[in-house]
Amino acid sequence: MKALVTGGAGCIGSDLAATLLARGDQVVVVDNLSSGKIEHIAPLQGAPNFTFLEGDLEDFDFTLAAAAGVDIVYHLAANPDVKFVEGDPTDKDLRQNTICTYNVLEAMRRAAVKQLVFSSTSAVYGVSPVQPIPESAFLPEPISLYGATKLGCESLISAFQNLFGFQCWIFRFANIVGPKVRKKGRTVIGDFIARLQENPRRLTILGDGRQAKSYLLSEECVEAMLYAIDHAGGPLNIYNLGCDDSLQVTRIADLVVDAMGLTGVEYDFTGGEGGWPGDVPRFRLDVDRINRLGWKARHTSEQAVRIAIESVLAHTGVACRP
Amino acid sequence: MKALVTGGAGCIGSDLAATLLARGDQVVVVDNLSSGKIEHIAPLQGAPNFTFLEGDLEDFDFTLAAAAGVDIVYHLAANPDVKFVEGDPTDKDLRQNTICTYNVLEAMRRAAVKQLVFSSTSAVYGVSPVQPIPESAFLPEPISLYGATKLGCESLISAFQNLFGFQCWIFRFANIVGPKVRKKGRTVIGDFIARLQENPRRLTILGDGRQAKSYLLSEECVEAMLYAIDHAGGPLNIYNLGCDDSLQVTRIADLVVDAMGLTGVEYDFTGGEGGWPGDVPRFRLDVDRINRLGWKARHTSEQAVRIAIESVLAHTGVACRP
Repeated sequence: MKALVTGGAGCIGSDLAATLLARGDQVVVVDNLSSGKIEHIAPLQGAPNFTFLEGDLEDFDFTLAAAAGVDIVYHLAANPDVKFVEGDPTDKDLRQNTICTYNVLEAMRRAAVKQLVFSSTSAVYGVSPVQPIPESAFLPEPISLYGATKLGCESLISAFQNLFGFQCWIFRFANIVGPKVRKKGRTVIGDFIARLQENPRRLTILGDGRQAKSYLLSEECVEAMLYAIDHAGGPLNIYNLGCDDSLQVTRIADLVVDAMGLTGVEYDFTGGEGGWPGDVPRFRLDVDRINRLGWKARHTSEQAVRIAIESVLAHTGVACRP
Repeated sequence: MKALVTGGAGCIGSDLAATLLARGDQVVVVDNLSSGKIEHIAPLQGAPNFTFLEGDLEDFDFTLAAAAGVDIVYHLAANPDVKFVEGDPTDKDLRQNTICTYNVLEAMRRAAVKQLVFSSTSAVYGVSPVQPIPESAFLPEPISLYGATKLGCESLISAFQNLFGFQCWIFRFANIVGPKVRKKGRTVIGDFIARLQENPRRLTILGDGRQAKSYLLSEECVEAMLYAIDHAGGPLNIYNLGCDDSLQVTRIADLVVDAMGLTGVEYDFTGGEGGWPGDVPRFRLDVDRINRLGWKARHTSEQAVRIAIESVLAHTGVACRP
């Protein structure tokens, strides 16, 4: 089995690449290293079955060359940053998510590669009237450019699947946490640790602190994907990946403070329901579909976050998010 | 009120532009004339409140210039051809639908235009497990590039609406029919008429002929849009536009044959459920939401198709589809 892992130097991608190598697959990682890190794949570089191609999926010819001769594509490359901040370009998600996914699909079509695994996101759901959110309950209205363009990817995958006989697995991830290091704290765990290292007395929390989301460990995310690929054999397989509960942001702050051995930290809140424009303040995922397939998260959101905090502190880095 | 109508030289766009002018709006039409026709707007060209700008929405600077100073954008420009034929480029819908819609949204953001009306399509729903299809019943899996990229547009609109305080109306059209002329018969009515003019004894029908879809007259489509804009004041308003029934393709053939005064025409069927790859064989729209708002189609699908056939024959042209 020859696998192409896009975004394979990212947090989840590199965990996936390592797992595929360990089970004997031949693995080609592509990454433009815009957010992925060469350190993440350094341990894999010696393996005889491993190839790393540095390049950008916006370059169609590069994408086509990378897809040649592979059996399956794990397309995890994406703009990893859900937050849109005033002044950001508004086409980053469109380019890095929707257009790159189109390039991957078209490269697969031309190279006659038929199997695609795609890392989507719970952000496609926007603010759901139904909680927990099942995969198929309603037509979503994403509120972020990230969620919108990921839904655009899913739509293209659905059409290519039907038109060209692909077999696809789409996974809508909860917030994925794990030990991999990032320089800048773009995620709640990394952000809290970095800011408490700067000032161990006060912590600013975005929003009103009552945002509550689902969390899943990166290693369990990889395990769930591979399990679903082995056990779900339909033409288009869509699964929420996460656990069935959620965790409040303020509680995460408490866990970080505890793990760092701090006391008497004062919290400031920036206020408002969401942490930033396009933030979905509260959600839970209905994970009945993946549970019924036979896979279940082994940790609650709180346990996953606690493990991630400890491993990040042990590596003195910050957490990662897809 | 100054309105920008993209795709304003198209079948529906030119009907809309005429209606807006008649009620006193200032109207700017943009069209690249790839499928729109200058004849459609010829009757409007003398009006003092009318401007036509020929250009392509893929050109962002053109789009930005067109959006300057308008109050509302009616974004109807799109690749009008739902059919994907082997050998077609696979990125035509992505460019002409999703990327052009992004350009319109970004131009609106920069020009501080806050109101957007968007012509979406029932093709976003793909093959629905629920019939008739309500606006919000399930997460769609489009099966055509047309439907997929239109859903990508809707997602972007949803995100821009939330992030930048737009007010938007998204209309998911049934099959829109009307008297406007096209050279090539890309639609079922135009196709049947053109081929029966060539050979009045035999007619090839794509698929098994049992495909059944909803039809709405272009003039009623325009009326419904303007009604909904006046009466639905939420930030993001999504409506199916159509009637509540459907009409089989073979019945349309019968209606065309009758209207042309032919008898004894033999039908050949190419076979298969759908007419082409990506064709949704059967659907009905749940139009309860627009009905409850106070608007209802005045014709059944069969009546609308019959009127369209007669008007097309009277103009000796072929029917139009969005």
